[in-house]
Amino acid sequence: MQNRLTIVFFLIFSICFAQKAPVEYVNPLIGTSNFGTTNPGPIAVRGMANVSPFNVAGPQNLPLEKDSRWLSTPYVHENTFLTGFSHVNLSGVGCPELGVILAMPTIGEINTDHLEYGSTYSDEKSKVGYYSNTLDKYKIKVEATATTRVGVSKYSFPAGDANILLNLGLGLTNEQGATVKVVSATEIEGVRSVGSFCYYKPEEAYPVYFVARFSRPADEFGVWKKPTKYMGAESQWMGYNGKTRVMEGFTKEVVGDSIGAYMRYKFESPTHVEMKIGISYVSLDNARENLEKETSDKTFDEILGDAQEEWNQYLSRIEVEGGTEEDKTIFYTALYHTLIHPSTLNDVNGDYPKMKTRETLKTKGTRYTVFSLWDTYRNLHQLMSLVYPKQQSNMVKSMLQIYEESGWLPKWELNATETTTMVGDPAGIIITDTYLKGIRDFDVEKAYQAMLKSADQIEDNPLRPGLKDYIHKGYLTTKTTNSGSVSTTQEYNIADYAIAQLAKEMGEQSDYKRFRKRSISYRHLFDKEFNLLRPRNDDGSWLTPYNPESGANFEKNLGFIEGNAWQYTFMVPHDIEGLMKLMGGPKPFVQRLQDVFDKNQFDMANEPDIAYPYLFNYVQGEEYRTQEMVSGLLDKHFKNSPDGIPGNDDTGTMSAWAVFSMMGLYPVNPAEPLYALTKPKFDKITIHLDLEYYRGHKLVITSNSAGNKRPIHSISVDGKPQMGYFITHKKLVHASSIQID
Amino acid sequence: MQNRLTIVFFLIFSICFAQKAPVEYVNPLIGTSNFGTTNPGPIAVRGMANVSPFNVAGPQNLPLEKDSRWLSTPYVHENTFLTGFSHVNLSGVGCPELGVILAMPTIGEINTDHLEYGSTYSDEKSKVGYYSNTLDKYKIKVEATATTRVGVSKYSFPAGDANILLNLGLGLTNEQGATVKVVSATEIEGVRSVGSFCYYKPEEAYPVYFVARFSRPADEFGVWKKPTKYMGAESQWMGYNGKTRVMEGFTKEVVGDSIGAYMRYKFESPTHVEMKIGISYVSLDNARENLEKETSDKTFDEILGDAQEEWNQYLSRIEVEGGTEEDKTIFYTALYHTLIHPSTLNDVNGDYPKMKTRETLKTKGTRYTVFSLWDTYRNLHQLMSLVYPKQQSNMVKSMLQIYEESGWLPKWELNATETTTMVGDPAGIIITDTYLKGIRDFDVEKAYQAMLKSADQIEDNPLRPGLKDYIHKGYLTTKTTNSGSVSTTQEYNIADYAIAQLAKEMGEQSDYKRFRKRSISYRHLFDKEFNLLRPRNDDGSWLTPYNPESGANFEKNLGFIEGNAWQYTFMVPHDIEGLMKLMGGPKPFVQRLQDVFDKNQFDMANEPDIAYPYLFNYVQGEEYRTQEMVSGLLDKHFKNSPDGIPGNDDTGTMSAWAVFSMMGLYPVNPAEPLYALTKPKFDKITIHLDLEYYRGHKLVITSNSAGNKRPIHSISVDGKPQMGYFITHKKLVHASSIQID
Repeated sequence: MQNRLTIVFFLIFSICFAQKAPVEYVNPLIGTSNFGTTNPGPIAVRGMANVSPFNVAGPQNLPLEKDSRWLSTPYVHENTFLTGFSHVNLSGVGCPELGVILAMPTIGEINTDHLEYGSTYSDEKSKVGYYSNTLDKYKIKVEATATTRVGVSKYSFPAGDANILLNLGLGLTNEQGATVKVVSATEIEGVRSVGSFCYYKPEEAYPVYFVARFSRPADEFGVWKKPTKYMGAESQWMGYNGKTRVMEGFTKEVVGDSIGAYMRYKFESPTHVEMKIGISYVSLDNARENLEKETSDKTFDEILGDAQEEWNQYLSRIEVEGGTEEDKTIFYTALYHTLIHPSTLNDVNGDYPKMKTRETLKTKGTRYTVFSLWDTYRNLHQLMSLVYPKQQSNMVKSMLQIYEESGWLPKWELNATETTTMVGDPAGIIITDTYLKGIRDFDVEKAYQAMLKSADQIEDNPLRPGLKDYIHKGYLTTKTTNSGSVSTTQEYNIADYAIAQLAKEMGEQSDYKRFRKRSISYRHLFDKEFNLLRPRNDDGSWLTPYNPESGANFEKNLGFIEGNAWQYTFMVPHDIEGLMKLMGGPKPFVQRLQDVFDKNQFDMANEPDIAYPYLFNYVQGEEYRTQEMVSGLLDKHFKNSPDGIPGNDDTGTMSAWAVFSMMGLYPVNPAEPLYALTKPKFDKITIHLDLEYYRGHKLVITSNSAGNKRPIHSISVDGKPQMGYFITHKKLVHASSIQID
Repeated sequence: MQNRLTIVFFLIFSICFAQKAPVEYVNPLIGTSNFGTTNPGPIAVRGMANVSPFNVAGPQNLPLEKDSRWLSTPYVHENTFLTGFSHVNLSGVGCPELGVILAMPTIGEINTDHLEYGSTYSDEKSKVGYYSNTLDKYKIKVEATATTRVGVSKYSFPAGDANILLNLGLGLTNEQGATVKVVSATEIEGVRSVGSFCYYKPEEAYPVYFVARFSRPADEFGVWKKPTKYMGAESQWMGYNGKTRVMEGFTKEVVGDSIGAYMRYKFESPTHVEMKIGISYVSLDNARENLEKETSDKTFDEILGDAQEEWNQYLSRIEVEGGTEEDKTIFYTALYHTLIHPSTLNDVNGDYPKMKTRETLKTKGTRYTVFSLWDTYRNLHQLMSLVYPKQQSNMVKSMLQIYEESGWLPKWELNATETTTMVGDPAGIIITDTYLKGIRDFDVEKAYQAMLKSADQIEDNPLRPGLKDYIHKGYLTTKTTNSGSVSTTQEYNIADYAIAQLAKEMGEQSDYKRFRKRSISYRHLFDKEFNLLRPRNDDGSWLTPYNPESGANFEKNLGFIEGNAWQYTFMVPHDIEGLMKLMGGPKPFVQRLQDVFDKNQFDMANEPDIAYPYLFNYVQGEEYRTQEMVSGLLDKHFKNSPDGIPGNDDTGTMSAWAVFSMMGLYPVNPAEPLYALTKPKFDKITIHLDLEYYRGHKLVITSNSAGNKRPIHSISVDGKPQMGYFITHKKLVHASSIQID
């Protein structure tokens, strides 16, 4: 209650001084178009549950219809036909997954076909922890909020017959299978099978458990099941072949691929019903406990208040002043998007499923999941280390739990499965970066062993395929892999650089030397002819003929993953000096880097080249290019509109780029505690550093030139002039004020 | 232990005196061909669980393959390709249902495709409570036995990799959906969806729960799932589309239409594993409790001993002497088949699912299920009333529970669903017959109200469709129904006769008169032109043109269900005198009845005409025809071979016909406590009457003419000459000896 009062006071204070709280700036509709793949539904900070409007099924939603194309989000802003609200969802990912446990309120007779019961909607509102719309077909107002593990909905029905459908057949992906059981007139429980992210590893499909509670006892209830259409000889006797069966009053489990349950009411006057759906990846009992512990004695409005308060506490760790209202919205929404994934896997009692076997284990801290590390190793974890070091520490601990449970660090972990999506070996990069930043309350010896294992084990290594060639030749060849031999070499280089950095810190000199050497082997792939990287064949010859532009627009190619030579050549953040030399010195380097932009080869929508704009800082006198470039990219790609993220948010990576860039900082080399500096978007930025990790002082970044296009002419730290356009993490977190003019 | 000693002594006694125990005569392979649809797997008396070899899947089993035609049994004797052992099965029914929870032992690598892991088999042995064969492909000896609620298997594996597969996708019908979970290295639990008997009422599909325990901890275990093949745009990315996924070591629920689990062993020498599968229709906990209470401390051999002892106690209620060994086998196997259905629905703790909603209720006595009443009202329940009155009493009580739970008496009840298969309103006939035989420890007032309800409620009456025409016109017309207007009228007549009989007994004179009158309304359908019954149209005119033979061989027709005018005209057991008058007196009656046989219109394989051979007894001097006919039909249709039942056993109805007929008795009019007499097949038949209901004396039927073809020349009861060829139930159960010479 004290907390709730705090936010009330805070809000009153804000109103009195005509200043909005950070939480009020967030617009969760940003990223819901242009394949940003975020969703506008309420979610708690790093929540397991989320109530997302689901509008990607049915021909009315073409061309952005889930079954007609690759679509990885339950909600697309321009779509109009809503078929429910899904209760477990991913945000900002590029592969379809989750998007299940769909609830839908309707009126009149029970209809279980989502193509028929779906509706257009109006009056859409999306705020932090809150979503609302009105279903045109039924005149039902829907409101939703969430706690960490519970999605909470409030349906305001007109008088008459009202229904709440729980559809367990419908979902974002092709994975199917569920059970459902009406426990009482106020409770439904069930299980839904999910898994096979990116259509990889379907053998790791797994169950998600839920318990739904309703604030009013249903007058009637039931379940339904739509069987597969049977093609055999007996189909002639099956009048019901392939047709849905509705089973009124049924109280036992129903099992199948396309099933659901409903609650039904007869209202004499307009009435609202609140529904709470508790989620667990461990068991039904835990789903019920999550629901009870987090929400049982609370109304919708109380839960909403708590959610907004929690978000405000996190968001207000960074306060911004000056800048436009639009910029503040873009900034806080981006910060919001970095606080969704990695998300919580464990139940309130600490239970979580072990990797692969899904035995139940217990954790003390939060066990995080959804580690899209190929994306997030570049900047998101660096943002966490700076602003939310406690979370970052738990994320590293979670990675080490994953290592203990599966024998390997994560690459793209999702709900205790390893999807092995994308390439490289990014976990160690994050661990090193975290450790070097002074966040050390984890078992670094174990982490180091884990990193060495994936770096050195040649056979049966799920993290580093092609490692044999990499070690022996220094690079993967066009024979080693048919996709991304150069990219993968670069990723392994960066990972090896991180091992070297950690080895050095730990006094492991021979490892340091070995991995330092390994980390620059990409140089073998530098081709003077193009002044770019180029794939080599097994015999050492160059891939010929060679068009360095092939690979743009995600076109599959031999050398590069989701990119081409332009987008990858500068992705050697740990060896920019070396790259300069290969290119013939600073001038040709700057020229070639500028070429990327001028030749329209820069891709803001994908990770390999997102640090490029900051690389001009490495050449004295060229830093103005970084400032112009970053400012221009922010203006062009990050907007207060549904298409306000350049592409997939990649579990917050694009958003982290915006947060850092708008603060005038960027972690330009992922395993080095160093930030490149550029012009901030705000006159004043206050980062409230964490008490436990950084002694809790305030770091204030101010700028007199935020509003203009003039290049930076001076930087000072705590009043003393700063040389160059980089600052170490240590210096940053010990500083009280940084002035960028 | 005392019981086990009893049977040991009994068996020793039998051996010493060179006499086999009744249980030793039973050949469960009888009825497993010729569409008898019994199965040779072990089952306890009225057991819920049963371990049936399953050999009806796969092209090797064509033409008797489950998906290529209507097939209602998990096992067909002439088939050769076995794909497992199903743990819940129906016996002797005409519609596919159950036949799920399939276990299969294999060796070598895990293969989850039953078409590939299936095998031929040798050394098949089937005895009461025991089945065994050897799987040719794997050299695995399989043995099986059962308690009431647990199927028990013993697999003798060769050295090497051994697997036990639990396939929850495969089943006899098209109903799908299951969950499965490996609980530990010695336990698997799960749920399978079943239902939609005869492809009726799929909305009443329901779960069956199981817990499987293994005598040895598995070295490895896992689950599998075969998803539906996806046809949408995304299928192009799904390399695994429609393919089975094997998930090793997985310990959470797997849900879907086509799933399974396996235990896997590495044996250094030949080793056997015992598997016990406990079943419940209520819950997993109850399945586990059933398993533990019935089998936990017992070995396979102990369970087998118990099963055989229990069966012997039941079978030896009737002892037969004289006659051939073949006749004894036919007799005891038929008696065995009458003790399978109705079967047990409640768990050991008394829990059972309520009709329709499947809420859990508790019963004190046994709650029976599988009431195929259109079949069994004719003779099976009469056999139970005579030999097993305690069971019959519980069956009536179960019918009244069904009435309380659903509002209606059963018609074709199956595991707490009402399939409404076939026509008529047979429950009341059985209740009246039971009551009139002195078995009265049930609530007859409630029963009477239930009978009146289905007889009088015109709207929304699931038991008596067409009741309005029946009451107003006296019959259903070709407009009332497009199938069986005459048959249904006859069935309602018999049901109304039963109400009249009960009304009379209870002193309800006006009801007695009303229903007595209603019971003979079939007379309106008697057409002098053919001297047979004939359908009438809505305006009262005869159906024209009319071929009284149409409807033979189950051909669908307007007048008759599964039969024609010949097979139905004499099915007025309560009004044979009336029918004689309609036909012009005894002589034309006998002539027309003889015509049925002479014109090859008699069908031994279906119920409507099965009492016909006994109807000659109604005409003095013609009784020899009954004797010849019954004897001839027994010889022709009932054999000690897989095709030794004339057609579907109809949950023991055909077998009950054989049991009665071989004893020289037949309950010729289902709601009248009366038996027609004919020549017994044995020299001496001893019925040990139930202590509680019949004071426990022995009834001995002896015959000096059992072995010859001479007609009966004298019948005496307790030494006194008996007039005519009928005996009342009262006289029968008070008699000590009946001599038929």
